[in-house]
Amino acid sequence: MKCLYLTPNRQNITGENMSEFSEWFHKILEEAEIIDVRYPIKGMHVWLPQGFKIRKNILNILRKILDEDHEELLFPLLIPEDELEKEAIHVKGFEDEVYWVTHGGLTELNKKLALRPTSETAMYPMFSLWVRSHGDLPLRFYQIVNTFRYETKHTRPLIRVREITTFKEAHTIHSTKEDAEKQVQKALEIYKRFFDKLGIPYVITRRPPWDKFPGAEYTIAFDTLLPDGKTLQIGTVHNLGQTFAKTFDITYETPEGEHEYVYQTCYGVSDRIIASVVGVHGDKSGLCLPPNVAPHQIVIVPIIFKEDAEEVLEFCQELTDPLKTDGNLRVHLDSRDIRAGKKFYEWEMRGVPLRLEVGPRDIKHKNVVVFRRDKLEKETIAIEKKFIDAIKFILDSINQDMKDKAWESFNRNIKSVETVDEALESLSKHRGIISFNWCGEESCGKDLEEKVRVDILGIQKEDENIGVCINCGHKATFKTLLAKTY
Amino acid sequence: MKCLYLTPNRQNITGENMSEFSEWFHKILEEAEIIDVRYPIKGMHVWLPQGFKIRKNILNILRKILDEDHEELLFPLLIPEDELEKEAIHVKGFEDEVYWVTHGGLTELNKKLALRPTSETAMYPMFSLWVRSHGDLPLRFYQIVNTFRYETKHTRPLIRVREITTFKEAHTIHSTKEDAEKQVQKALEIYKRFFDKLGIPYVITRRPPWDKFPGAEYTIAFDTLLPDGKTLQIGTVHNLGQTFAKTFDITYETPEGEHEYVYQTCYGVSDRIIASVVGVHGDKSGLCLPPNVAPHQIVIVPIIFKEDAEEVLEFCQELTDPLKTDGNLRVHLDSRDIRAGKKFYEWEMRGVPLRLEVGPRDIKHKNVVVFRRDKLEKETIAIEKKFIDAIKFILDSINQDMKDKAWESFNRNIKSVETVDEALESLSKHRGIISFNWCGEESCGKDLEEKVRVDILGIQKEDENIGVCINCGHKATFKTLLAKTY
Repeated sequence: MKCLYLTPNRQNITGENMSEFSEWFHKILEEAEIIDVRYPIKGMHVWLPQGFKIRKNILNILRKILDEDHEELLFPLLIPEDELEKEAIHVKGFEDEVYWVTHGGLTELNKKLALRPTSETAMYPMFSLWVRSHGDLPLRFYQIVNTFRYETKHTRPLIRVREITTFKEAHTIHSTKEDAEKQVQKALEIYKRFFDKLGIPYVITRRPPWDKFPGAEYTIAFDTLLPDGKTLQIGTVHNLGQTFAKTFDITYETPEGEHEYVYQTCYGVSDRIIASVVGVHGDKSGLCLPPNVAPHQIVIVPIIFKEDAEEVLEFCQELTDPLKTDGNLRVHLDSRDIRAGKKFYEWEMRGVPLRLEVGPRDIKHKNVVVFRRDKLEKETIAIEKKFIDAIKFILDSINQDMKDKAWESFNRNIKSVETVDEALESLSKHRGIISFNWCGEESCGKDLEEKVRVDILGIQKEDENIGVCINCGHKATFKTLLAKTY
Repeated sequence: MKCLYLTPNRQNITGENMSEFSEWFHKILEEAEIIDVRYPIKGMHVWLPQGFKIRKNILNILRKILDEDHEELLFPLLIPEDELEKEAIHVKGFEDEVYWVTHGGLTELNKKLALRPTSETAMYPMFSLWVRSHGDLPLRFYQIVNTFRYETKHTRPLIRVREITTFKEAHTIHSTKEDAEKQVQKALEIYKRFFDKLGIPYVITRRPPWDKFPGAEYTIAFDTLLPDGKTLQIGTVHNLGQTFAKTFDITYETPEGEHEYVYQTCYGVSDRIIASVVGVHGDKSGLCLPPNVAPHQIVIVPIIFKEDAEEVLEFCQELTDPLKTDGNLRVHLDSRDIRAGKKFYEWEMRGVPLRLEVGPRDIKHKNVVVFRRDKLEKETIAIEKKFIDAIKFILDSINQDMKDKAWESFNRNIKSVETVDEALESLSKHRGIISFNWCGEESCGKDLEEKVRVDILGIQKEDENIGVCINCGHKATFKTLLAKTY
């Protein structure tokens, strides 16, 4: 690893106040060399090598889960104007945000080409050619690509960008409504497994109708909570019904020889999955990465005194190799000729989960000092036959403990309220998620949003026996969440 | 694997004449479900799941080699007009080919944005910020991205496209001219190792000055030969000298505190690496994939008679599992309820390197019939303790034999000529690469290109003692190649 652009007067992040989350977030992205925001287009950034590795590890986890029963493919970036505009509701949702290619070289194109904001209108004309018979279904595809949104709101790295570099979109095709419904449930399970691997807590809600994906029957979303108390939407699952099937004429032949429209779902995550790993787990010392995604899971720092240098380095190398080869772990031996303390600071800031410190005394006693980044605690463990297993056990514990800690903090920040006043009071005191009873009426919901001046995330649970709506006083049937959102 | 869009009246590729390479190539891309060319924009195609897997395996090989001493990163797709146009020679080479984004939503952008045709002008302004001191150098980066060229020539899938979906570009930065020169040599070694893994033969030449990369001091290229006798450029290495460093002000501080411009190289490969694997190894039976890149390295086909079905399937499963887990091989058990002959045809067409056939008699004798796709030959081998090793040995042999066969055919198609007439005669009789002696003068080279109506690929070797130039009769110093090119 090379420090690309550390400047001498860089401030120490340790001194900062975590409540200034936005500033912390920008600083850690820079200091841990995750992305470089100085690219000369607003909302478009460079993934630096360290950030790219975190992104790659996260995507590997996602791919492994999806590859169980999805097929990865890759569609072109550009979408012809007439295809993009075929589905009226859909295009209305995106028309203000689409980047348009109008020229090739010095020639004006006959037909404008859109940079995909999402790929329904790129894929579905092809699905119409691909789907023939009921025997072909279901089909489950995904791709991981860059998409583009001409955001007019304030942009934020990894959170609100104009080039989404890491857009995972899955698209599935089914012969029945029930099968599509089942796929929605499967997609929820997929994302649960995925976020659990990242240790990211979430609430799952059905978005209110005025906030669903343009063209979908309904949208179910995952939201997490960043340290400033604002929720971040990190995944969405859409039941598309037959809307797009009818627009793009995607039909299949039934066993009886009839032609029927298919049912479709799609679900996606974006760069925000990486933002959430950075934001949820980070602390005053900087980045804190779960071993599942850390570029280096372990860094080995030799504690060298002049006379022992060679022996210590050799010992460290002998410690490194089996962890890599037999343990299949991502291990880095930091043999740079700088002070150990500087190394400690740097690797803590970069979030390496486990640091092994080895000095002459440790060699003598066949010990190693193990420092856990998540707890900022040290212990000494013996280098014996089961050493690799012991280290793996600690790494597993770190994954688990980080997840538990994140969930605890998350759950602490969900408050139940009985009245609008209580909601307002709670919003003024703490920033987090508020749970309340709602009648489900759109007019009432929008009225409430105006009163509390934050968004309804969505419906968490339907229940006939929860009492009355906190806003209109009519019968409530929905356990609902609201929060200040990104 | 699912046959996405096989139609009943699809023609059998086996009956075709390989000399009609172009037709064969298009057909096999379709039939083996590598890409779908029916996407509604000329020169932009869909990677289908099977093709995507081949592409992924090829990229894994490439990444593994590059990751030894390069760092992967990811730059934005869009380049502001003023950055793209900063380097005059460079932009001149691309100005007819650049796609321009002019609108975001309904708003005209203040500054046009180019879809990257290549990323020098995206990366180098940032390099100017990153590079500080001699201690930072060398730096070696790469990214694998999509790039765009508004091709006015006839497009061909994977060969001449408007969206290059698989553009691997490496960019390196050095403090001295010598170090940059060394990197050029290292890049050649990298590509040799890479193409050797794919079994793709190549010639390496220094492109004539009128054919170098816009802005480079010189360009060295890899060309292979497709079955129609036309060469395909599959990799290029550019020594950029200080041209871009001066344009983008990329300097470093020397140990003496002076500020000096850096030296740069860049090198790239594209979708053509996949085109070459398809084109070079394919035969009348369809695709033929080296085990190194095949999505399935082995397919197991049970030979089932009704009464033995269960036993055979169970045996096949027991054969599959250890090959996957202990052997770490990509194995597919084809248990579909269709005729074995249909399976044979399909997997041969899709190029699976090794087929294991298992029937009741094989189970009884503890044998398995092994079919090699490259030689279209069968042998019977015993299922014993070293079975996995035996299979791995065969797969290694296939990699080696396919590479040897490709090189033999390639070398047979390089002809040496002494005169222009001989060159013309040779070009009319066989189509391949022609080797000749050249004086090195640009006017003479261009004159020769006009006479023979094919391109000079480049200089293979400098040698003072090779005689006279076949065109002008003056002293020749360059062993040079020419060929009809893609």
